[in-house]
Amino acid sequence: MAAVLDMRNVLAAWQLIRPYTRHTRLIYSHYLSRVSGADVWLKPENQQPTGSFKIRGALNKLGRFTDEEKAQGIVAASAGNHALGVAYAAQTWGGLRADIFVPATAPRAKLDKLRRFDVALHQEGATYDAAHQAAAAFAAQTGGIEVSAYDDVDVVAGQATIGLEILTDLPQTDMILVPVGGGGMVAGIATVAWALNRACQVVGVQPEASPAALFSLRDGVAYDPYDHEPTLADGLAGGFGQVPFALVRGKLDQVVLASEAELRQAIFTLLDQEQMVVEASGAIAIAPLLNGSLDVAGKTVVCVLSGGNLETAVLRDILVEFGGKNWPSLMLK
Amino acid sequence: MAAVLDMRNVLAAWQLIRPYTRHTRLIYSHYLSRVSGADVWLKPENQQPTGSFKIRGALNKLGRFTDEEKAQGIVAASAGNHALGVAYAAQTWGGLRADIFVPATAPRAKLDKLRRFDVALHQEGATYDAAHQAAAAFAAQTGGIEVSAYDDVDVVAGQATIGLEILTDLPQTDMILVPVGGGGMVAGIATVAWALNRACQVVGVQPEASPAALFSLRDGVAYDPYDHEPTLADGLAGGFGQVPFALVRGKLDQVVLASEAELRQAIFTLLDQEQMVVEASGAIAIAPLLNGSLDVAGKTVVCVLSGGNLETAVLRDILVEFGGKNWPSLMLK
Repeated sequence: MAAVLDMRNVLAAWQLIRPYTRHTRLIYSHYLSRVSGADVWLKPENQQPTGSFKIRGALNKLGRFTDEEKAQGIVAASAGNHALGVAYAAQTWGGLRADIFVPATAPRAKLDKLRRFDVALHQEGATYDAAHQAAAAFAAQTGGIEVSAYDDVDVVAGQATIGLEILTDLPQTDMILVPVGGGGMVAGIATVAWALNRACQVVGVQPEASPAALFSLRDGVAYDPYDHEPTLADGLAGGFGQVPFALVRGKLDQVVLASEAELRQAIFTLLDQEQMVVEASGAIAIAPLLNGSLDVAGKTVVCVLSGGNLETAVLRDILVEFGGKNWPSLMLK
Repeated sequence: MAAVLDMRNVLAAWQLIRPYTRHTRLIYSHYLSRVSGADVWLKPENQQPTGSFKIRGALNKLGRFTDEEKAQGIVAASAGNHALGVAYAAQTWGGLRADIFVPATAPRAKLDKLRRFDVALHQEGATYDAAHQAAAAFAAQTGGIEVSAYDDVDVVAGQATIGLEILTDLPQTDMILVPVGGGGMVAGIATVAWALNRACQVVGVQPEASPAALFSLRDGVAYDPYDHEPTLADGLAGGFGQVPFALVRGKLDQVVLASEAELRQAIFTLLDQEQMVVEASGAIAIAPLLNGSLDVAGKTVVCVLSGGNLETAVLRDILVEFGGKNWPSLMLK
């Protein structure tokens, strides 16, 4: 596959989407720096208007549609954050019609936010893949344009602006830890790091329950769809896209995995130490610093916290599980 | 008392502290807008580097010290957030010596963060007033300069920059809801609103457990110290300062109260609807929108979320109390 992402496209994406996104400011994490021996910064994409980075790719994609394409209507399938991104972009670019397909299992935090937008919401199927099939059938029937959450160069170019912001704000960054699902964000960030600073390592982090990128890179073929186990990181479950696969080969230094228990620990740590609500798919970026699986001592590390749409009930259960018996900061004093 | 705060001082404060603070961006709250009938925006001062707005006043105060004053050393008493502000400012302005007095009851979330700074930490007394007396005695003995958390025009000028940011970012603001304790923030914001847009109402919100400002304004005398009841809003407990009292008279439209139960509901709502961790002293600003005690229909309202240093254990208890049985968003659908 000949997917190519030129830095000019990334810069053009930044110019296009900047007025409608937050240039999220890096936050220094004293706690993670102390436990890892690195200088650790957090990129809080949970602070985007919809609660995740997905607006970047969706704004860039929809913003490049012709008037004819806009009139055809937008179709998207998503576990939640991409749906919110598409809804936000459809509203931003003039109230385009958007038909959004989400699995019945999509988190309430994301569905609640989605209902705030003027979109046609279809809850279909029990998995993302089922919702995706329904969306594809609907698009074929109606002539709507299906916007992939990750398998699209314009979407990747939008997500790449995260990398631009990191490397312009903190040029000495040695390593960026990126949550990986379909691969749109990691492909974008790896493209930018490759162009701006090849010494900056890009490391993907996946749930053990859905290691599609790890296996795709190992085997030299993009596994999409991918038959995953259940995971709290709903946004990262499923296959690794063809376009991201083509873009990251040779540019992604490593993919590491995190267990479900490590995801819960990561969510608790961000809450307890940084007073931040980050969903499992975003908190996963700090897991390798907590479990010591990466040697980062002395490095400047940025963890991309990709989204914050966490179910309150999940947060409650995690606080009950960890709160009161496990105080990492006291243990380390 | 002849306390005067000129807008030139507020603008000078903004110029001085800007490189070291976040210009926090207003967040539109769909949920609070729906329940109140207003357009509600949140000013997320919990996103400041120390987790609260207090760095603004402390940076402005310490940044104006002469070299001789800087050499005398800084003394401060605080329940936590002012201590963090002073510690941050002492570090910012060249590593000044700072002796910080906190009551033994100060929240762990704030103490943990305080220990990250190179300050001399004194845990003395069971209340803020006791810590304050210890700080005053120490300052008298050592020649250190005690920096008040609120009873100081330079501190108020620093907090006033919150008002500048609100009214320059959203000039159509009709009402600003401001948490009130010692009064530094409300005095600063009221001064700015008075200068820039007298139609913009400034409403103070206090815990029922510590209504010092309400009684001070009613009786025409600043009650400081004030013998308060226990409250979850530790940052708002205690007296209303002389300087804020002099500055706000005639400029503060109203002071409303919130019960402890309403504080807990406010914390839960921000967590559940906005995925934001806000401490009771900050969450109080939305309480009047939840309990309907203010008529805000059709208005553009900004709630200042002054800080986010909430104890994880408190958050856990609130989530257990509300989570799973009370879903406001479903109730309203």
